[in-house]
Amino acid sequence: MTTPESALPMVVPATDLPARVRIHEVGARDGLQNEKTAVPTSVKAEFVHRLADAGLTTIEATSFVHPKWVPQLADAEDLFPQLADLRGIALPVLVPNQRGLDRALALGARRVAVFASATESFAKANLNRSLDESLAVFDPVVRQAKDADVHVRGYVSMCFGDPWEGAVPFHQVVRVCKALRDMGCDELSLGDTIGVATPGHVLELLSLLNEEGVPTNVIGVHFHDTYGQALANTYAALEHGVTTVDASAGGLGGCPYAKSATGNLATEDLVWMLQGLGIETGVDLGKLTATSVWMAEQLGRPSPSRTVRALSHQE
Amino acid sequence: MTTPESALPMVVPATDLPARVRIHEVGARDGLQNEKTAVPTSVKAEFVHRLADAGLTTIEATSFVHPKWVPQLADAEDLFPQLADLRGIALPVLVPNQRGLDRALALGARRVAVFASATESFAKANLNRSLDESLAVFDPVVRQAKDADVHVRGYVSMCFGDPWEGAVPFHQVVRVCKALRDMGCDELSLGDTIGVATPGHVLELLSLLNEEGVPTNVIGVHFHDTYGQALANTYAALEHGVTTVDASAGGLGGCPYAKSATGNLATEDLVWMLQGLGIETGVDLGKLTATSVWMAEQLGRPSPSRTVRALSHQE
Repeated sequence: MTTPESALPMVVPATDLPARVRIHEVGARDGLQNEKTAVPTSVKAEFVHRLADAGLTTIEATSFVHPKWVPQLADAEDLFPQLADLRGIALPVLVPNQRGLDRALALGARRVAVFASATESFAKANLNRSLDESLAVFDPVVRQAKDADVHVRGYVSMCFGDPWEGAVPFHQVVRVCKALRDMGCDELSLGDTIGVATPGHVLELLSLLNEEGVPTNVIGVHFHDTYGQALANTYAALEHGVTTVDASAGGLGGCPYAKSATGNLATEDLVWMLQGLGIETGVDLGKLTATSVWMAEQLGRPSPSRTVRALSHQE
Repeated sequence: MTTPESALPMVVPATDLPARVRIHEVGARDGLQNEKTAVPTSVKAEFVHRLADAGLTTIEATSFVHPKWVPQLADAEDLFPQLADLRGIALPVLVPNQRGLDRALALGARRVAVFASATESFAKANLNRSLDESLAVFDPVVRQAKDADVHVRGYVSMCFGDPWEGAVPFHQVVRVCKALRDMGCDELSLGDTIGVATPGHVLELLSLLNEEGVPTNVIGVHFHDTYGQALANTYAALEHGVTTVDASAGGLGGCPYAKSATGNLATEDLVWMLQGLGIETGVDLGKLTATSVWMAEQLGRPSPSRTVRALSHQE
């Protein structure tokens, strides 16, 4: 599929935005782990290869979590070696604990990610531990990864709201971010897991993190489109100087509130905006859209990405 | 339906944004005229009343266009008098020409809108006239409305892109805007009819209009979510100082590219952002969402608004 010229945004830069953004593509991990359909390993491998061919340079590949918790990604050991030919592409993998790290390192992973929570409730629900207990679990994992010279990303979920607690205090988010940095995390990803954030909230958190010694260049943003706010929040983050943005090809990844409709920010919607702003991403929107259309066929449901729907005339 | 407290955005203002935004609700006109389902007049009247009850103060009610062109709104003469009890609510109506204005004035309309194009191709397709010919048709309409002390809004469609011409030169948009202002239009609405705009484009057009003597306080913005960009563009416009934003309850109003999925910016998605930013709108999000859920039932299809879906657990 090629993108019709008439349906591309006119390139008009805005002042004081970054010249280049690195998209951290999460579709193959965060997306597929939330899909009901089980995807064959060969399809996942083709998906990651197609994403790389579309120009994405950071593609989170899978998770070394126990198969009991995330059966969708139980094939991590089979999948990861099939990506070995992707030279020059960063392929981070999620590791929930020591065992996960060991599995990832045994396969030669050079980038890992840990998944922390900014709230007690989600730490309890997701990890069955208190917030401090969960951080204590990550501490040796992150340190061992750093000893092995492996790049570590620290996800911080529920940064902007929590379904049980409602508002999440800024100081709590900052505390978790600093703890992850102190362990040695090279970068953080601020997650709006339930999609409630608005731009002022984003800017305030970023400013507070800077004040507390966490520089913008180690911060990525991870917005969900549950309430349609992801791209506005991303724009605000770009204005603050953020240059790492998480997104999911085709908007893969459901959400408990509305099945198959409103999960992760779609990479295509993000690329459309960045392209219009003249911000380099290296991504070929036509190839990426074709990949998401193909993956939607594998999953048997249309992509929720507005850009994918518009460019592919998909219903 | 009430909005669960835990699912509301935390209020965190951003600096230099307006304290209050006037939402120009277009669902009853721009939304319904693009729906395939014919809606009974009584349902339309209830829709407008419910929108007013939800706190919207400017509700575009209908169009006095020839029924042959827009059969969905052929009941304008029946509908408009049924709204006479809505004191203090601005109820603009679209008038395509002299005949439409006469019909609207005969019913006591105090606000009308004309619908111009920024491009030759759309003027030709929509009005079967050249751009200058179409402006010549509007000139006496606007003047007569102003003579009757009626408020006039001038829509300018295709400001950011055109399906036939692709990129639309800034000077052409500015020329049409100035022509409408010279006729006497009290306010303008800059339409991104095909949804291709990105924030830099929006900011540049607003700046150019200011330079050419069109002040921000007479400019409204009208974005479409075809590529998911509407809210990011709105945020950029707010940063520029725009205080009038068009939106359609529930995202009503289709789009030729993706049926029932990606038309007008949904009022609920907009209100979510404004509420989170601490910007006053006077709108009760719970009542508005309930109205859109009710209207979706009338139309027999789910609302494409992400906020409506999330708040109503609608699939």
